Amino acid sequence: MPIHKKIRAYFSPEKKLLASLRNILGFYPGNISLYKLALRHSSAAKHIKKGVKDSNERLEFLGDSVIGTVVADYLFQKYPYKDEGFLTKMRSKMVSRAKHNQIAVKLGLNQLIVANNDRFGSKPSSINGDAYEALIGAIYLDKGFKFAQKFILKRIINVHIDMDEMETIETDFKSKFIEWAQKEKKEFEFETVVDGAEVADKQFVLHLVVDGKVVGNAQHLSKKKAEQMVAEQACQKLHI
Amino acid sequence: MPIHKKIRAYFSPEKKLLASLRNILGFYPGNISLYKLALRHSSAAKHIKKGVKDSNERLEFLGDSVIGTVVADYLFQKYPYKDEGFLTKMRSKMVSRAKHNQIAVKLGLNQLIVANNDRFGSKPSSINGDAYEALIGAIYLDKGFKFAQKFILKRIINVHIDMDEMETIETDFKSKFIEWAQKEKKEFEFETVVDGAEVADKQFVLHLVVDGKVVGNAQHLSKKKAEQMVAEQACQKLHI
Repeated sequence: MPIHKKIRAYFSPEKKLLASLRNILGFYPGNISLYKLALRHSSAAKHIKKGVKDSNERLEFLGDSVIGTVVADYLFQKYPYKDEGFLTKMRSKMVSRAKHNQIAVKLGLNQLIVANNDRFGSKPSSINGDAYEALIGAIYLDKGFKFAQKFILKRIINVHIDMDEMETIETDFKSKFIEWAQKEKKEFEFETVVDGAEVADKQFVLHLVVDGKVVGNAQHLSKKKAEQMVAEQACQKLHI
Repeated sequence: MPIHKKIRAYFSPEKKLLASLRNILGFYPGNISLYKLALRHSSAAKHIKKGVKDSNERLEFLGDSVIGTVVADYLFQKYPYKDEGFLTKMRSKMVSRAKHNQIAVKLGLNQLIVANNDRFGSKPSSINGDAYEALIGAIYLDKGFKFAQKFILKRIINVHIDMDEMETIETDFKSKFIEWAQKEKKEFEFETVVDGAEVADKQFVLHLVVDGKVVGNAQHLSKKKAEQMVAEQACQKLHI
């Protein structure tokens, strides 16, 4: 490491943050303000201009896309004989909200996130995944695509993603949702709005109602599939 | 250009294709087989292994993601004071199916696509957009991210995308769908499955039925919004 970086790292008021980031990233950040921004949840952000806050949401937008591309490339190379349907499914499992939350905690990002806890009763776990995505956005802007790609391959996929597990697990949103609802003591109902057996097009229309509010709405020839679809919508909407 | 590339370009059996690609891309392809693959629609592909065809669909998966990241970066830099909601909306307009089809035709890719026309009555226009996305996948694999990024910025966004227009147009899926349906002489109906005025949660549930098949299904407090939603689903599903 060049001497001026060492000195900055040692004397900087952000010494502790820099050390933590160095541990997590395996390198010293160049533009530290990007990384600080990546760790700032919107609940702790100030308005810097009408309608714009200095939160990590813009970086999250960017980082999410960078991760998607790196994972797409990784899958493309790893599975030369699989079709795009397989690649798409694998990617969605590898970059799911749940996976990103998990990765963030494994990296220790949850210790570094700046959020205003008064703004929410219980901290939504998506805060962690969002910060991970924003961190990748920061690395991309700070060091470029190739660097971000190496980081994701070496420090995330190689270490924190079990590809055999990704290949075998089927994402069962219904079970995931019900588990969450029971834990959170929510009332819910998978409501059949249209019974496929009684209509010409044979399609079921289902609502998933949580505490009296419709959080999922889907139709399918198979009632089971429709249940999965409304549960998936609910998982997304409620950040489960 | 190095002499060996010139010679290859001159004597190659793919001389004509190389010249066309040189015109479109502004550079000579390195690995020509990638570009040939990018231009091969699945209707003209052979099975190379059980379940896998040598079509452009895998490259399309990759290229689509690369375009998304390049556009995300571009928007992030261009609009430093806009929030992620604005960035997301702008990106979806810039990378829409319709836009990609348009870009492909402007580049002249439609002249180079290899497809088996017997397999479909009228050629779906999405073939062009798909080939554009696959082409970007080929450039990315052949020359790397930075190169693909430069290509998209200089030869696509600068030339073929009017950012003022992107900022002002609202995507009106209902009009777009109706225009298509009339042109294609399709019967359709925006069917109210649940009337919001008559139920407790006040949500409308709408189906969009085309030639007797439900192609869109949405719910919303506003009937107009639900119509837009089912029309958007239909536009995606039917590649309009």
